[in-house]
Amino acid sequence: MAGTDERGSTRSLVLRAIRAGGTVSRTELADATGLAGASITRIVRGLIDEGLVTEVGLAESRGGTPRRLLELDPAARYAAGVHLDRHGSHIVLTDLAGRVVARDDGAGFGPSPMETLVSLAERIADLVDSVGVPPERILGIGLGSYGPQDRRTRRIRSGYVDAEWQGTDVCGVLEHLTGLPVALENDALAVAVGELWSGGMPPTATYAVVYLAGGIGGGVVVGGRAYRGSSSNGVELGHITIDHAGALCTCGNRGCLDNIAGPHAVVERAIADTDLGERLGLTGTEASIATDFRLITDAAADGNRIAHELIEHSARAIATGAVTLANLFDLDSVVLAGPGYGRMLPVYRDAVADALDRSFFARALHVVTATASTSTTEAVAFGAAASVLESAFGPDDAADALVPFPRHRPITRPAYQELT
Amino acid sequence: MAGTDERGSTRSLVLRAIRAGGTVSRTELADATGLAGASITRIVRGLIDEGLVTEVGLAESRGGTPRRLLELDPAARYAAGVHLDRHGSHIVLTDLAGRVVARDDGAGFGPSPMETLVSLAERIADLVDSVGVPPERILGIGLGSYGPQDRRTRRIRSGYVDAEWQGTDVCGVLEHLTGLPVALENDALAVAVGELWSGGMPPTATYAVVYLAGGIGGGVVVGGRAYRGSSSNGVELGHITIDHAGALCTCGNRGCLDNIAGPHAVVERAIADTDLGERLGLTGTEASIATDFRLITDAAADGNRIAHELIEHSARAIATGAVTLANLFDLDSVVLAGPGYGRMLPVYRDAVADALDRSFFARALHVVTATASTSTTEAVAFGAAASVLESAFGPDDAADALVPFPRHRPITRPAYQELT
Repeated sequence: MAGTDERGSTRSLVLRAIRAGGTVSRTELADATGLAGASITRIVRGLIDEGLVTEVGLAESRGGTPRRLLELDPAARYAAGVHLDRHGSHIVLTDLAGRVVARDDGAGFGPSPMETLVSLAERIADLVDSVGVPPERILGIGLGSYGPQDRRTRRIRSGYVDAEWQGTDVCGVLEHLTGLPVALENDALAVAVGELWSGGMPPTATYAVVYLAGGIGGGVVVGGRAYRGSSSNGVELGHITIDHAGALCTCGNRGCLDNIAGPHAVVERAIADTDLGERLGLTGTEASIATDFRLITDAAADGNRIAHELIEHSARAIATGAVTLANLFDLDSVVLAGPGYGRMLPVYRDAVADALDRSFFARALHVVTATASTSTTEAVAFGAAASVLESAFGPDDAADALVPFPRHRPITRPAYQELT
Repeated sequence: MAGTDERGSTRSLVLRAIRAGGTVSRTELADATGLAGASITRIVRGLIDEGLVTEVGLAESRGGTPRRLLELDPAARYAAGVHLDRHGSHIVLTDLAGRVVARDDGAGFGPSPMETLVSLAERIADLVDSVGVPPERILGIGLGSYGPQDRRTRRIRSGYVDAEWQGTDVCGVLEHLTGLPVALENDALAVAVGELWSGGMPPTATYAVVYLAGGIGGGVVVGGRAYRGSSSNGVELGHITIDHAGALCTCGNRGCLDNIAGPHAVVERAIADTDLGERLGLTGTEASIATDFRLITDAAADGNRIAHELIEHSARAIATGAVTLANLFDLDSVVLAGPGYGRMLPVYRDAVADALDRSFFARALHVVTATASTSTTEAVAFGAAASVLESAFGPDDAADALVPFPRHRPITRPAYQELT
């Protein structure tokens, strides 16, 4: 075990250094990792044997022999990511460089878990076929969805899904259907991990993602590692109290951030307190929340004063939540991601930046920046795929034991099963 | 480097297993750690050579040869812990088993950093002399105090200390005076780490300490490791917003937990809104806050209805903060520690327990318990000493790099300097 750990962690270190460096020599790797030259030579030989790394030419060298240059082979491995929610699903296939090589959108949670999962499996199979990736190069499938999640029994335990869904081992079923290992991931944490593979965040960054979609979610990465706490159900940012005398939330808490700043709250306020409901044709139904909220952010971006005030109120409350995250997790940055921000992303970002500048507790020691993610509507699917890559090639982490991928998996994967 | 890491982490693993087991055989160690028998043999031999572990006899064995039993030698190493605040200081000396072998109380931050630090160094020297511990067995000094702290320049950056203190390298000065390495630690985080060494918490627990003294502080331990975030300035629990429309705090935030539930807030309310100020003789001055607050908790415990209501209000607000901690860090328990709770500790604990039962977001997956620490007024000093032990014998952690102790320090320490 000790040997495995040691090999695993230095192997990850070297792989990450190669990924970060793009094209690097063994000497540069030794400098970047602090490992001895002999260790680098041995580890790189193993990575070349596994097909993960290739030699791509020679670099000039002052005096000595020319140095052979190394690169990650992006086509050596792939990962699939699925984002499944009530309103739809996204699937992406990424290569080892974290590039999306194929994508597909479709239906969300259906009434029958089995039908939905068979459909997802078929779409994944089609996607893999469409790009001609050898199935044995696919590391696995990341499945991003709502929290809370039970990563041991591999069930989604959110109130957003019904009892039949809550009772389904979604990973087990999908594994059976596809022949690939499947890991469940919180949607917002997936987005946070995705930032490590999209180039949005450097490999040892400490930051939170504030994810705005149908609600407000959070994901924290500390020193390049996903923060998982006890059961990978942390950073429920939408359900922290920012008004202790506020209304009771279905979660049991009072004055939750989501009930003050989330899309539901903003749409309800627009309909109840203003004439925006009629003017924008808001319906306020569960199914139309995303559309309704988008109409409000669009109206605000187009100069509607009332819509702008509603969004500013939401942005100030989210900024309050961001400061809480920064003061508790001691972050270096807060990243805003998710489709909810829409065209008002700059307003939210400025509100968060202002609040962090003004009230981050340890601001005498370091700043906390607020940035807007460049991620798209497929951010959760991409992040779920990134979680697979991270679990195979990221830093060692005790919490990774939760992920059903062997850390140092054999190269040959179970053959991709024909779906019956 | 890889070799050192591997040795270090398996060595820590074995040391922790011996500490947890009390008296253990090599076979039990192999079972407990998952390490191969040969590795256990090699590591144990090293620990015996270093004097950390001793063989203490033979155990019965079914069939095979009797197994030799191992124990940690508590007297093999010691750590000093200092708690320095405005109102006083505590010093403790602990052995490797985490037992306090000597203690001393004295003055707090004085106007001259140099005078205060010389006095601390003298008291530490006296304490070491008094118990006859060979100075070379003292691993170092943990200095617990207010956050924020700059662990790189090793300065206390809290507004509670003046510019001269903020500009003083307290660790460097104390190192010079004592000849021992010194590490700065946040008071509340020290208390949290202390729970790992007092037997309050098992070695891989995930929990937060809510520390109540002059204000409200927090410390989080995840899987047995201190949570440090970017700069070890996290979990500023007193400065999260629980009333986003509340009063502006000196920290820049609005409606901070400390301004609603902390001793200052309760004492101010008692004087302004009730007749308790006169009846209990509260003065409300900065220097008397601890005494004033103690008078209120005592009155509440003695059945004074108004005092009880004030404390219940404070307890409910702290419970709100505890739920935020649990929902963000995904904790298994919340531990209440610190002198502030006084005789009302059960009321605070019940309020926190009720709130966690009712509103922890992932309560369908696991409970979050609320417990009262058995720690005393020297909890920060003890925890600061525990941080030293943890830094030398705890799990490997990237954040430990912040602590100026070599992870695998030579046995022979610099000789304990005579103070001039």
